[in-house]
Amino acid sequence: MAKSPEQDHPQAAFGWAARDPSGLLSPLKFSRRTTGEKDVKFKVFFCGICHSDLHSVRNEWGFSTYPLVPGHEIVGEVVEVGSKVEKFKAGDKVGVGCLVGSCGSCDSCHDQLENYCPKMILTYGAMYHDGTMTHGGYSNMMVVDEHFAIKFPQNMPLDAGAPLLCAGITVYSPMKFFGLDHPGIHLGLVGLGGLGHVAVKFAKAMGVKVTVISSSPGKREEALQRLGADAFLISSDTNQVQAAMGTMDGIIDTVSAVHPILPLIGLLKQNGKLVLVGAPDRPLELPVFPLIFGRKIVAGSCIGGIQETQEMIDFAAKHKITADIEVISIDYVNTAMDRLAKNDVKYRFVIDIGNTLKEA
Amino acid sequence: MAKSPEQDHPQAAFGWAARDPSGLLSPLKFSRRTTGEKDVKFKVFFCGICHSDLHSVRNEWGFSTYPLVPGHEIVGEVVEVGSKVEKFKAGDKVGVGCLVGSCGSCDSCHDQLENYCPKMILTYGAMYHDGTMTHGGYSNMMVVDEHFAIKFPQNMPLDAGAPLLCAGITVYSPMKFFGLDHPGIHLGLVGLGGLGHVAVKFAKAMGVKVTVISSSPGKREEALQRLGADAFLISSDTNQVQAAMGTMDGIIDTVSAVHPILPLIGLLKQNGKLVLVGAPDRPLELPVFPLIFGRKIVAGSCIGGIQETQEMIDFAAKHKITADIEVISIDYVNTAMDRLAKNDVKYRFVIDIGNTLKEA
Repeated sequence: MAKSPEQDHPQAAFGWAARDPSGLLSPLKFSRRTTGEKDVKFKVFFCGICHSDLHSVRNEWGFSTYPLVPGHEIVGEVVEVGSKVEKFKAGDKVGVGCLVGSCGSCDSCHDQLENYCPKMILTYGAMYHDGTMTHGGYSNMMVVDEHFAIKFPQNMPLDAGAPLLCAGITVYSPMKFFGLDHPGIHLGLVGLGGLGHVAVKFAKAMGVKVTVISSSPGKREEALQRLGADAFLISSDTNQVQAAMGTMDGIIDTVSAVHPILPLIGLLKQNGKLVLVGAPDRPLELPVFPLIFGRKIVAGSCIGGIQETQEMIDFAAKHKITADIEVISIDYVNTAMDRLAKNDVKYRFVIDIGNTLKEA
Repeated sequence: MAKSPEQDHPQAAFGWAARDPSGLLSPLKFSRRTTGEKDVKFKVFFCGICHSDLHSVRNEWGFSTYPLVPGHEIVGEVVEVGSKVEKFKAGDKVGVGCLVGSCGSCDSCHDQLENYCPKMILTYGAMYHDGTMTHGGYSNMMVVDEHFAIKFPQNMPLDAGAPLLCAGITVYSPMKFFGLDHPGIHLGLVGLGGLGHVAVKFAKAMGVKVTVISSSPGKREEALQRLGADAFLISSDTNQVQAAMGTMDGIIDTVSAVHPILPLIGLLKQNGKLVLVGAPDRPLELPVFPLIFGRKIVAGSCIGGIQETQEMIDFAAKHKITADIEVISIDYVNTAMDRLAKNDVKYRFVIDIGNTLKEA
């Protein structure tokens, strides 16, 4: 019989957890495993609030288990390392993203694509190798296999860097994989939210021309003047869309609501690539003619591998890319969730775990 | 004001044409342009009946003009060449596929992808550079810019080779472009018709493992024993589909009816590619989760460029690949169209133009 989260493991831990699909978060005492020989134990300083945290606490994808401690944009400081740990020592800054485990032996794992391992283990709400459930970064401390821990660059702010561990890698990886990462490329970017705003920053650092495609005319100034996008396109403005037809090498689509992709496919050049990184819960309508007549591609992409996440955060540090954040205390988390549901944040909430999470 | 098809040009020609959306074909006198300095004039021997001929004569795509002389799987013998023609001389065997023109100056044209040129000119029912309508291969002779004429290999049967000019290149091109063309690859093939049956032959010649995916259990023996496919999967058999999940590097989907692609995406490995070459007239349902979690791709592909068509027909000649055909006389063409509408042909009708088309 399963033990309680507090009795699973020997190391006491505490955090905030959802208890049911209301999604309301409240303090929880639970536990972490003994620091194994390949594990790093770290104190959590900051944790971003990803939109998938919201889906998860409310069980909107249907596979949540409770109590659920969310959080997969986690930054902290190493306090203990196992005897065989090579990458870290106590005092190092460390990051953990969406994954804390994988099988280690499949083709995806061999290709450093643990994110596509069929047995990949999510940072929270998943069953770990030892049969216990994983708990995320809305908590005081974590114990993680060093393979899944990211060395956090010295000059990267801990708070504004945290969201890159999910939002950053989710847009960086497809830009690299689909060849949308170099000067001469014209990239469209749909949705200027948590993912979209860092995608603009990465694109500009790569020398890519980027056009933000948005349903909100009010985001024009933000996109062009503050984030440095090259152009702004209102998705509902037929004339604007018509004028931009056939001009983009690729589009990263971050929207997770059901939406039409026909106009997006039209914006692509021949051989263009529409990459979906937001996951609508119902199928989209796929028009086939425009795909065929332009040899165009609709693809999906899911976060990135660990090695690539390290590469991404190092690239971000080099180019001084961070997320735009609103730092909150843990006591504010339920309000933040409600605001996030209304897209009322620019662009990412980050919880100051280190200073505000106190044991009940 | 437009002249009549008979008066457009100086060279008298005749063929069979549809006059209205009934699609019924009947003899028509029309005309061909003077053989220009870069043109080849040839006598038509054979012309395949492609499914798109049926769509076109019945105006099922909504852009047909009448009278319409269909046919874009055309083989014949050169009778005259212009002064600057380099590839052909009188007596040469020649093939013409779906295209007879393009702009010549866009990126696609420069990349030998005339098929993706926004101004590409279809072999029939399209406006040529000179403002007259193009007429296809259900006719006694043609005049074509040599750039769009294929050198037909000596050892390739004229009748059974004709369908390769559309059906063959349509499946060959995506197998090459998407890297599904070498030993070690497991290719799924949906739909065992005009395109599908030659796709099996190309795949086997390339050393690719091929699984035919069909809704018709009756095609098993045909697929495995006569065409040499490695496996056969009934698309409605959940157990069979389940057992094959995640095993295919790519799938060529030749079905032009609306059909579910979720199971096909499931059959793909991580990073697998579903390539649509049939064009349903309504959108398909695109499930996004399985695309994202496997970094999978849904793509379209449309015939191929001229250089690649030459490469394809030379490859086919080398490997003795032809289409399985039923040769008919031109008088039978309306019956053949009705049978084609019911998929009652194995696998391609080819009209013996040379011996059966007589001027009224």
